[in-house]
Amino acid sequence: MTPRAAVIMAAGQGTRMKSPVPKVLHKVGGRTLLDRVIDTVERVGCDRIVVVVGTHSPAVRELVVKRLGEQAVAVQDPPLGTGHAVLAAKEALAGFEGDVLVVNGDCPLLEPHDLDPLFKLREEGAPLALLGFEPADTLLYGRLIRGADGHVLRIVEPKEATPDEQMVRACYAGMLCAERAQLFSWLERLTNDNAKGEYYLTGIVGLANADEMIVRASIAPESAVMGADTPMQLSQAEAIFQQRRRAHFLAEGVQMLAPETAYFSWDTEIAAGAVIEQFVVIAPGVSIETGAVIRAFSHLEGARVASGALIGPYARLRPGADIGEEAHIGNFVEVKKVKVGPGAKANHLTYLGDGTVGAKANIGAGTIFCNYDGFDKYDTHVGEGAFIGSNSALVAPVTVGPGAYTGSGSVITRDVAPDALALERSTQVEKEGWAARFRAAKLAKKAKK
Amino acid sequence: MTPRAAVIMAAGQGTRMKSPVPKVLHKVGGRTLLDRVIDTVERVGCDRIVVVVGTHSPAVRELVVKRLGEQAVAVQDPPLGTGHAVLAAKEALAGFEGDVLVVNGDCPLLEPHDLDPLFKLREEGAPLALLGFEPADTLLYGRLIRGADGHVLRIVEPKEATPDEQMVRACYAGMLCAERAQLFSWLERLTNDNAKGEYYLTGIVGLANADEMIVRASIAPESAVMGADTPMQLSQAEAIFQQRRRAHFLAEGVQMLAPETAYFSWDTEIAAGAVIEQFVVIAPGVSIETGAVIRAFSHLEGARVASGALIGPYARLRPGADIGEEAHIGNFVEVKKVKVGPGAKANHLTYLGDGTVGAKANIGAGTIFCNYDGFDKYDTHVGEGAFIGSNSALVAPVTVGPGAYTGSGSVITRDVAPDALALERSTQVEKEGWAARFRAAKLAKKAKK
Amino acid sequence: MTPRAAVIMAAGQGTRMKSPVPKVLHKVGGRTLLDRVIDTVERVGCDRIVVVVGTHSPAVRELVVKRLGEQAVAVQDPPLGTGHAVLAAKEALAGFEGDVLVVNGDCPLLEPHDLDPLFKLREEGAPLALLGFEPADTLLYGRLIRGADGHVLRIVEPKEATPDEQMVRACYAGMLCAERAQLFSWLERLTNDNAKGEYYLTGIVGLANADEMIVRASIAPESAVMGADTPMQLSQAEAIFQQRRRAHFLAEGVQMLAPETAYFSWDTEIAAGAVIEQFVVIAPGVSIETGAVIRAFSHLEGARVASGALIGPYARLRPGADIGEEAHIGNFVEVKKVKVGPGAKANHLTYLGDGTVGAKANIGAGTIFCNYDGFDKYDTHVGEGAFIGSNSALVAPVTVGPGAYTGSGSVITRDVAPDALALERSTQVEKEGWAARFRAAKLAKKAKK
Repeated sequence: MTPRAAVIMAAGQGTRMKSPVPKVLHKVGGRTLLDRVIDTVERVGCDRIVVVVGTHSPAVRELVVKRLGEQAVAVQDPPLGTGHAVLAAKEALAGFEGDVLVVNGDCPLLEPHDLDPLFKLREEGAPLALLGFEPADTLLYGRLIRGADGHVLRIVEPKEATPDEQMVRACYAGMLCAERAQLFSWLERLTNDNAKGEYYLTGIVGLANADEMIVRASIAPESAVMGADTPMQLSQAEAIFQQRRRAHFLAEGVQMLAPETAYFSWDTEIAAGAVIEQFVVIAPGVSIETGAVIRAFSHLEGARVASGALIGPYARLRPGADIGEEAHIGNFVEVKKVKVGPGAKANHLTYLGDGTVGAKANIGAGTIFCNYDGFDKYDTHVGEGAFIGSNSALVAPVTVGPGAYTGSGSVITRDVAPDALALERSTQVEKEGWAARFRAAKLAKKAKK
Repeated sequence: MTPRAAVIMAAGQGTRMKSPVPKVLHKVGGRTLLDRVIDTVERVGCDRIVVVVGTHSPAVRELVVKRLGEQAVAVQDPPLGTGHAVLAAKEALAGFEGDVLVVNGDCPLLEPHDLDPLFKLREEGAPLALLGFEPADTLLYGRLIRGADGHVLRIVEPKEATPDEQMVRACYAGMLCAERAQLFSWLERLTNDNAKGEYYLTGIVGLANADEMIVRASIAPESAVMGADTPMQLSQAEAIFQQRRRAHFLAEGVQMLAPETAYFSWDTEIAAGAVIEQFVVIAPGVSIETGAVIRAFSHLEGARVASGALIGPYARLRPGADIGEEAHIGNFVEVKKVKVGPGAKANHLTYLGDGTVGAKANIGAGTIFCNYDGFDKYDTHVGEGAFIGSNSALVAPVTVGPGAYTGSGSVITRDVAPDALALERSTQVEKEGWAARFRAAKLAKKAKK
Repeated sequence: MTPRAAVIMAAGQGTRMKSPVPKVLHKVGGRTLLDRVIDTVERVGCDRIVVVVGTHSPAVRELVVKRLGEQAVAVQDPPLGTGHAVLAAKEALAGFEGDVLVVNGDCPLLEPHDLDPLFKLREEGAPLALLGFEPADTLLYGRLIRGADGHVLRIVEPKEATPDEQMVRACYAGMLCAERAQLFSWLERLTNDNAKGEYYLTGIVGLANADEMIVRASIAPESAVMGADTPMQLSQAEAIFQQRRRAHFLAEGVQMLAPETAYFSWDTEIAAGAVIEQFVVIAPGVSIETGAVIRAFSHLEGARVASGALIGPYARLRPGADIGEEAHIGNFVEVKKVKVGPGAKANHLTYLGDGTVGAKANIGAGTIFCNYDGFDKYDTHVGEGAFIGSNSALVAPVTVGPGAYTGSGSVITRDVAPDALALERSTQVEKEGWAARFRAAKLAKKAKK
């Protein structure tokens, strides 16, 4: 196979997003637009990837360096148009022999099967392969004007289109593929004699035709090439993403009581036979095994739920929550960085943070793992089969031995031996008639006012 | 009226559901598909009901035996086609004189008014009455080929249909009605000389016509006969069920802030004048009286909410929660098997499990009924007008008398007399400057690192 | 500008709402229908506003008196038709010189730009200006029959319309504008010689034409004039309201992960750059600053969230919650009437009611502000940089000084000095082997049964 590289255009400021976060760092399915596009070009076989960034968004550069290394960054400075942006990648691709795919960094729904046809057109001999689409509303897009043989003759901007050209449905999506040396040779011949004084990537279509080189186009679905330029577009892309994930999981055999209210992430893993109730949010890093039930109003992130476990309603699993087989995490319970053993239960109003809960242990309602002293965090370990009385505070670092009990309402600061009972409690005292006197005094005072 | 019986076909394995649960035991509106179909045939007047089950799903058999008795079970073993399935019911219906309705066990939205016309066709003299429908997409379904007089001449499978026949909109829904003896006589004449070697129920249409007996069809809405074969279809049936319940309750005078986010069950009862806010899940067994307000993010199951009560937001009522007039159950509060008296309040972060709360009692924030010792559960009783201080643990079995107070943060293990104050608390001690020294030491340690 | 007045018709009983609450007191976007219409006529420049109320709903009268004063009330008693209702406002408008707008009190989506054209038609010389609309389904509405010059000749009720008239799309919306004296002169000439014996407002169209006065109409969108007569219609109006707010906030630069699950109020303020996650309810009185993140399952009412604050998931902010810059309010936390300082954190299972939390203070999991004694409420003050140990109860009135610590599980009833540590706790005791013996005894007992 001809080696493949990709140039990802991520230098735009994205001011229409009206956000302090650079556009390509916004997320769909919990993953940045840029990461999603990098994922896609990697999956389509691009071994060399260059991301063109601007000088205004150091965070974009950081992401690229962290994921792909310093050599994957090309800086466009100042911004002089899309053609100029791609040209900025020339040095980074020096020495690469093969096809270069140019894609937008803000297309969260672009998939490998949308890009494959461009490489195929290259294989079939077209020096330049364009990605097109047929938008529902063509008003804003350059039309792909094709000859009788299907070859693209030129791209006509909507304002300059004749009535016949305006009827053309196929538009240019701003992405293309060509052999590296050829691509940069065209880019260097671009001129900026237009209203904005910019070097447009589209200009190479004219150059290719002038060179009598064949330009062909592949048509992708509109959703695949839709950019996320505004909060509205971003939310529309997210909605399509979610619809696809829901359909995917249903097809895989995941039961959902109301798929329209289940929200997934790009890396969510759910096995067939798991059940998802209404109003569930699954943030990144979650895997759910078969037979597990995620009840209504639950929020999961960075968590594993083993088979047969029962989560929620109103359970929050935070990163590091690892819930064992048949374990129960109930309402108003938060679990963070705790491994909960098989068959253990924490059913009501509980915070489990940092530590372990042994198999079949029972954590009473209102239990708090006190894991933080204002500076450091410490672990709590509850042994297998232990029983933590309701409304307890376990002050970490602390270990409750296997089979031990702790009394309701106790603050446990020292380790508890296996099979022992630990208690921290005063004597209950009773003041006879106090409430009657208190009430009488209060009512008398209110009456005076 | 001619006596009516029903044969419900529930022997399919339902492998497309990709679930360990047999298909007909999946639920819509919180009720199994099979129970829903039994409900429907009962409501249409079928006194004798036979459910044909396979050998692979003992749980289906169990449901039938529990609900209808052993005599309602017919076993199809091995599965040799739909006609063979119905024939399995022959013995169970021996001696029955009347019309037999044959229905699918996996049609969750089938209603009595969809089936009534079949019996009417029988009354009007048609020996065989078929249930048809006009699907949006006819691709997969056998067409009902009818003569000029509307009589069904045959059912043509889509693959074998002529272009003219393919244009026919009316399709066969797999359900029918005929006189018992006649039905089984046809079934016994079925042959299996087809590709799969199965005895198809549709074959009796040909036999009836060969016998020069009139076959007529009644057309039901597609939703009525849609089977729930896959998680996707099941979720679509659920969505239609929910839309109908929402429209029903709105028409009845229930106020809903966002009906599209309210989820009901098959047996939910809500009186006119009740209010349902956003994001509410009502599982089976719930009744809500007029003037009650179910606030956002609430989850109710097996609970009664009396008039004027205020529930939520974020309230969870579990089975046996019985909330009195004008009572308040607030955020992050769970109630299970507790009768809460009129005007009582439990507004914040509380677990009420097993017991009673008297009228106008006030349960402070963070209160826990400690009802479980790892083996048994015990009751807590809070008297009328009692005041439970915040963050209390009431260790059951325990009774707080009417009008009594308990101090904040107390663990109450012994009964409290009426109008008394009970306290369980140590002396507050203060270590001057401790926090300053602790902080300095921690910061010094961090600085060293 | 010609002075403008408005007569708002709010005398209907609204029985189709099937609610104890009068129709115009139902809410859209958290604001009563009547308040919304008053808002609209105020914004269109009506200085004098009269609301026609019935005798059956004292609560409607109360709202009007409270908002606009006693002189704004006109009582229709008994109800004798829409024309009679407007006539009831005659006395209240005595002496007013200018145009009078007549609007329905139950049109929650009516906007100033829908009404402006009526005044414009008046300015252009039409003595009577009607509000029309083109409903998707014209079945129920009176058609506006217009001449070649566009002047309205008459309104034809659907039952009396000729086939040609039935084809007319433009219908009468029940609202209009005319000069005061002229309007009341027409109203006094109305007759009730019809089936119901009522004085219909529409009758003045005939009188105007008989007087050879020009009647013109302006066409508004159907949503603008849709009345909320039933719970279904009310929920439809709410849905449109929410769609508009979502689109508005997206356009303003608010990020939303799932706009279809975010619910706003009429007065919600959210700055660009704020983020709203899934399943969020924002009741009235909320403002959210830039960079704040409202996480999933949060419920806000009467609260301010400063820039960079992190709210939820599962946070409930009630009236008077004032959350400072970069502060965190976490899961299962309720805040009511508490000012939380910049950078302070209350992350888990906490109730903060009445008081203040200083900058950078840390409120441990399971903390309760015990603010109520059954009669009065008291304040809790936590100083800057203080650290409240988990599962604490702070019994108000109480102050924890800046930099102080409180031990986990303590009930703090007396003030804590700055930088001190306060503790309320007994000695932890351990009963060796108790749990093993308890378990053995329980199991033996169970075995006996």
